[in-house]
Amino acid sequence: MNEPTSPRPRQVCVVVTARPSYSRVKTALAAIAAHPDLELHLVVAASALLDRYGSVIDQIEADGFPIAAHVHMVVEGENPTSMAKTTGLGLLELATTFDHLEPDVVVTVADRFETIATAVAASFMNIPLAHVQGGEVSGNIDEKVRHAITKLADVHFVATELAGERVVRMGEDPATVHVTGCPSVDLAMAARDGSRLSFDPTEEYGGVGADIDLDQPYVIVLQHPVTTERDDAKAQVEATLHAITDSGHQALWFWPNVDAGSDATSRGIRAFRETHEPGRIRFFKNLSPAHFLELLIHSAAIVGNSSVAIRECAYLGVPAVNIGTRQGGRERGANVVDVGHDATEIRAAVDAQVARGRTAPDPLYGKGDAGLRIAELLAEVPLSIEKRLAY
Amino acid sequence: MNEPTSPRPRQVCVVVTARPSYSRVKTALAAIAAHPDLELHLVVAASALLDRYGSVIDQIEADGFPIAAHVHMVVEGENPTSMAKTTGLGLLELATTFDHLEPDVVVTVADRFETIATAVAASFMNIPLAHVQGGEVSGNIDEKVRHAITKLADVHFVATELAGERVVRMGEDPATVHVTGCPSVDLAMAARDGSRLSFDPTEEYGGVGADIDLDQPYVIVLQHPVTTERDDAKAQVEATLHAITDSGHQALWFWPNVDAGSDATSRGIRAFRETHEPGRIRFFKNLSPAHFLELLIHSAAIVGNSSVAIRECAYLGVPAVNIGTRQGGRERGANVVDVGHDATEIRAAVDAQVARGRTAPDPLYGKGDAGLRIAELLAEVPLSIEKRLAY
Amino acid sequence: MNEPTSPRPRQVCVVVTARPSYSRVKTALAAIAAHPDLELHLVVAASALLDRYGSVIDQIEADGFPIAAHVHMVVEGENPTSMAKTTGLGLLELATTFDHLEPDVVVTVADRFETIATAVAASFMNIPLAHVQGGEVSGNIDEKVRHAITKLADVHFVATELAGERVVRMGEDPATVHVTGCPSVDLAMAARDGSRLSFDPTEEYGGVGADIDLDQPYVIVLQHPVTTERDDAKAQVEATLHAITDSGHQALWFWPNVDAGSDATSRGIRAFRETHEPGRIRFFKNLSPAHFLELLIHSAAIVGNSSVAIRECAYLGVPAVNIGTRQGGRERGANVVDVGHDATEIRAAVDAQVARGRTAPDPLYGKGDAGLRIAELLAEVPLSIEKRLAY
Amino acid sequence: MNEPTSPRPRQVCVVVTARPSYSRVKTALAAIAAHPDLELHLVVAASALLDRYGSVIDQIEADGFPIAAHVHMVVEGENPTSMAKTTGLGLLELATTFDHLEPDVVVTVADRFETIATAVAASFMNIPLAHVQGGEVSGNIDEKVRHAITKLADVHFVATELAGERVVRMGEDPATVHVTGCPSVDLAMAARDGSRLSFDPTEEYGGVGADIDLDQPYVIVLQHPVTTERDDAKAQVEATLHAITDSGHQALWFWPNVDAGSDATSRGIRAFRETHEPGRIRFFKNLSPAHFLELLIHSAAIVGNSSVAIRECAYLGVPAVNIGTRQGGRERGANVVDVGHDATEIRAAVDAQVARGRTAPDPLYGKGDAGLRIAELLAEVPLSIEKRLAY
Repeated sequence: MNEPTSPRPRQVCVVVTARPSYSRVKTALAAIAAHPDLELHLVVAASALLDRYGSVIDQIEADGFPIAAHVHMVVEGENPTSMAKTTGLGLLELATTFDHLEPDVVVTVADRFETIATAVAASFMNIPLAHVQGGEVSGNIDEKVRHAITKLADVHFVATELAGERVVRMGEDPATVHVTGCPSVDLAMAARDGSRLSFDPTEEYGGVGADIDLDQPYVIVLQHPVTTERDDAKAQVEATLHAITDSGHQALWFWPNVDAGSDATSRGIRAFRETHEPGRIRFFKNLSPAHFLELLIHSAAIVGNSSVAIRECAYLGVPAVNIGTRQGGRERGANVVDVGHDATEIRAAVDAQVARGRTAPDPLYGKGDAGLRIAELLAEVPLSIEKRLAY
Repeated sequence: MNEPTSPRPRQVCVVVTARPSYSRVKTALAAIAAHPDLELHLVVAASALLDRYGSVIDQIEADGFPIAAHVHMVVEGENPTSMAKTTGLGLLELATTFDHLEPDVVVTVADRFETIATAVAASFMNIPLAHVQGGEVSGNIDEKVRHAITKLADVHFVATELAGERVVRMGEDPATVHVTGCPSVDLAMAARDGSRLSFDPTEEYGGVGADIDLDQPYVIVLQHPVTTERDDAKAQVEATLHAITDSGHQALWFWPNVDAGSDATSRGIRAFRETHEPGRIRFFKNLSPAHFLELLIHSAAIVGNSSVAIRECAYLGVPAVNIGTRQGGRERGANVVDVGHDATEIRAAVDAQVARGRTAPDPLYGKGDAGLRIAELLAEVPLSIEKRLAY
Repeated sequence: MNEPTSPRPRQVCVVVTARPSYSRVKTALAAIAAHPDLELHLVVAASALLDRYGSVIDQIEADGFPIAAHVHMVVEGENPTSMAKTTGLGLLELATTFDHLEPDVVVTVADRFETIATAVAASFMNIPLAHVQGGEVSGNIDEKVRHAITKLADVHFVATELAGERVVRMGEDPATVHVTGCPSVDLAMAARDGSRLSFDPTEEYGGVGADIDLDQPYVIVLQHPVTTERDDAKAQVEATLHAITDSGHQALWFWPNVDAGSDATSRGIRAFRETHEPGRIRFFKNLSPAHFLELLIHSAAIVGNSSVAIRECAYLGVPAVNIGTRQGGRERGANVVDVGHDATEIRAAVDAQVARGRTAPDPLYGKGDAGLRIAELLAEVPLSIEKRLAY
Repeated sequence: MNEPTSPRPRQVCVVVTARPSYSRVKTALAAIAAHPDLELHLVVAASALLDRYGSVIDQIEADGFPIAAHVHMVVEGENPTSMAKTTGLGLLELATTFDHLEPDVVVTVADRFETIATAVAASFMNIPLAHVQGGEVSGNIDEKVRHAITKLADVHFVATELAGERVVRMGEDPATVHVTGCPSVDLAMAARDGSRLSFDPTEEYGGVGADIDLDQPYVIVLQHPVTTERDDAKAQVEATLHAITDSGHQALWFWPNVDAGSDATSRGIRAFRETHEPGRIRFFKNLSPAHFLELLIHSAAIVGNSSVAIRECAYLGVPAVNIGTRQGGRERGANVVDVGHDATEIRAAVDAQVARGRTAPDPLYGKGDAGLRIAELLAEVPLSIEKRLAY
């Protein structure tokens, strides 16, 4: 305190808009909060505030992060029009929030559609923007959003070498591109320590469907609707339901997030349950990220189209059956097998992957120090809003 | 009508948000309206609707284009926060507009900040997006907006070969990138035919300041505030006012457009006028694009930081004094001299450029058929919303 | 067509924002659509568009009304802040809608919070506003909204003589106040004809909880959260759950509507079910208004705080146990008994009312011709936006 | 500070949306800020933030009031649709502001259209609402807005006995209605002390038009557009311009405020100046309220349709020529003569009023202690959000 030159810590505003985004930055948040030259302002927004998508906000508070602002911005409807309106409302609200917080840098996470509101508000307000997890390839609206944010961002924290190369090829200054690994792998590494499950998901979260014997092998299912394939969402979820039911495996099935088409997914599940006897499946709404990771680590395989299967499971070595186009183009470790939306094909892949067992850890998406590296970089890198295409 | 295969014409929705954007697509609008396989839905939005920035809407109606929707979206304030809010409101409104018009393709023009609302609304609503004038380099928020729109767009109509190369290097599929030239050059080419001025700007538009003798040489001044240099806006405009006053040249000075900082520009002009005797300068709010072009073609030089000096004037051969950073990075023909915000430097450059006279026509930004080519391409190219980084 | 004087039919825009509002104007909508001098433009907005509050929109389409515009405006959160934001977004959207439809008169229904957006948009845009169901007294935010709308409205269609007197006492011109009765009673009168249930609610709608024997007496429960008593919502619903469970009566329990606090109500129901064995209760989300009316007509009593118990049931003679403050001040027929949020008190009243049986029809809220009268008045009354306090 | 029971001061949030509203509460703001049991949170919003309507914000800061929040909410367009949208945006923004400030009571001033956003946000968020200046009668949209706000408000500070009676007749609890007089009269009383002008408006504010000799008699002109007579705004302002020009009186003419139609007023003034030689008129944008009052006190008469002529001038005894319908229904002292929008009629009235000279002070709108009384009442009255029509 006595040093005459000790400057004000950098004010870092991180905007979290959804449950998975929180998992993707949790270790970075902790490292920012702990860093002497940084001050954390956590903004919780959009579906992260909504009860019916799981109380992320409760988890955040339980994890001890003070919340600087709550930004309600989800316009109901869950269709492409309401996605646009949610983003428009978010832009109105986040401008007010940034006006009030006056951060030195804003951090936006990944590629959910509404995160472009964070990126536009910060860049229009001349606040340097840092982007976590650019440079990946996945198709769909996420693809457009992710790269558009890269072009609005001033600092880039990417998960893989290849992602970093792509960001540079898009014309960003290499000095602003940092390969940090993905903070979600930090969490997976920490969760790995437990030798057995510390909780029973049915006791903790209820859920509906079959009783699960956690001493027996089980698979995890997570299948999100694909925004450009909305009309197929119902059929797609039914194919997976058939495959899992027919396979006879025990399954913990997690409910989709708020997005255009998720109502169709819900309807698909409901419709199936009315006409079929679903197999040994139990459906859950949302678990805490920590609990989810525990279940994943002890699972026999993960099935669906979640990026968790590609990203965290690379390092964890959990066999993954990736269905459909949603993760197309994303780099994969040896743990992944790709299939289409076909019940027979899915079932065969699930059987094979469960039989095969764990693969070797692959540091493709990081080695567990991503959060720390992001915080250090946020404290050190020059913050500028001036940039220009490098070619 | 009897042909069994005649399809519905493609419904093309073009969103125009400002006076200069209208000039940049006017010949394309005419060509779309005239094309048998296209139907034009013109949406007029943002500052293009506002009286105090010149009645663009009156010009559009006078030009015979029916208007499909008026979208009021400008939140007053003219600061970075209101720029963000204007864009958020635009996103809310344009989502409703697209819902109603159900276009097959949306066309967005150039890089003004609020145009990202058009791009986000269309891409989130799964409507193919065509972007006119991507791939250029200019610095400032326009730079970020332009490339972010490129990453949201599915079809690219670029002005120059180099712009096209840049769009491809940013990862766009080369099959979707079309070098059409810039439609603003089409207008310049058409306006070039008149051998002398068809009107007197003072009679037609009033204006304030000195009387101008149009039979004597005059220069055109157009100086926009630079969003990242807001605090300097007043000083910057004063340097130019001093240079022009001291040079003794006659000048037609056009008022800046709505943007953060334009109030500062206005204040700079007012403050100068209160303490100095401005020279042979007459100030105008907004002319019709056609009238402006006529004045430009007959001018001795253009001074300031407008892209017109770089773009249309390349082909017209009008000598240009480009001041400051706003056009940094944009390709230049031989007609341009660059200077800083320094009164002495500006004055010397103006004197030299006026003395030098016309340069040879340079087809860098097109040869006058850009509007036609854009319409033809809109009728022919495959329209898809699926894309992925090319590397 | 040949008559020289046949004027354009009056363009009547009715805005429906929720399931109960639709029931409250359905017969008026039919009469407007059928009237030769009127043209109906039905705008469906807010929770009426949302799947999770029951597909009102499907019922509207099944009833054969064309929909002029869908207005998504619900900002998620279900707290007082999101109520304000929902209304603000609705105001933005409805202004665009009225701009597009250009109605001669806008009709708004009752007193839900978001309906003030309809009233403000119409009055600010100089469109005459007709209000259905003003002049009643209920307490809570509905009370404020209802009377504020009266002060914004130009024509008043009230349900009862006393309501009409109140509107006049508030300073409205008596010539603009018309006692039409309530259109919801029209529906009840029509539904009354069926001698027995035409459907099984469990077969039709699923629901969860006990099996109901429809040949045995059952009660209907409908309990809404009270916006000013949000913290008590959970306890209030639990008192009623205890009373019904302990009474041993069969009950059809209908799920609350979207409002601040309804999540608490839902949580109250879920919490009770986890710790108690609920009695002979079956929970349903939303029935079609017609089906609901059928169930009501055949019920032994209605319990809760819905206005249906006061309004439609006056005429139907269904015994009602009204709980708490929500209907405070509303005129009652002989069918109603009032109790507090006390399980013992509620149970005693339910037992007594079931034992007592039907009461004589009371035309307090109308005789079944309200919809017709509203349509006739809309075709005939002078439409002006000029008004002034009568004293 | 040592008293164990000393409670937290009441947090009073006052929302000021325009220049005249600031004058109407300035003495109340000072009294609230000075009161030991109150804490002032001043929110400056809407046109009060906009440069082109005069820098109210600068005056507020000069007066020493800290500003708790700036709320940008004006959607450009100045037509009825943008009035509705401005209010919608204000509702979104004010909800966020109240969420952040958590006031115990919100104070809204008078009846400008956008103030209904303040009233709706506060009442929907269960914050007690106090309304200054209800119960008056004026016609137009202000009339609807004023009384609608009365029905949303919980405490009423009215200017006159008659206004108080009207609020009670509208059904408000008499215990919540307080006749305080109007704070604008407090200011007038204070300003009255100066025996001569302390400044020269031309030196201080510039302005355009004739030179004014302040030692000779002059009249003040203030003419606002009437929202329901938008098409006549240009003709109406021209009639007054003719009357003043022909009368030969010196005049200080003040520019209208932001509202639908004010562009038409501006156009009327510009058009007149292009075709006529305006007489001894000087046009000003906006003066500080204090300066305006000084000019008013020393003027020979006030002409136009401002409420200042009715309200402050009753007490000051300044002769007033009130034109048209805008102040219709408002109580008048002996200083007022009413005329229509007819140049001859206006001129005759101006001549007669100037000739007649001062009238006796009339305490109709207060005796100079309104601000103090409002602050005292805010500290003492019970604050409840529960209310019900009194009949």
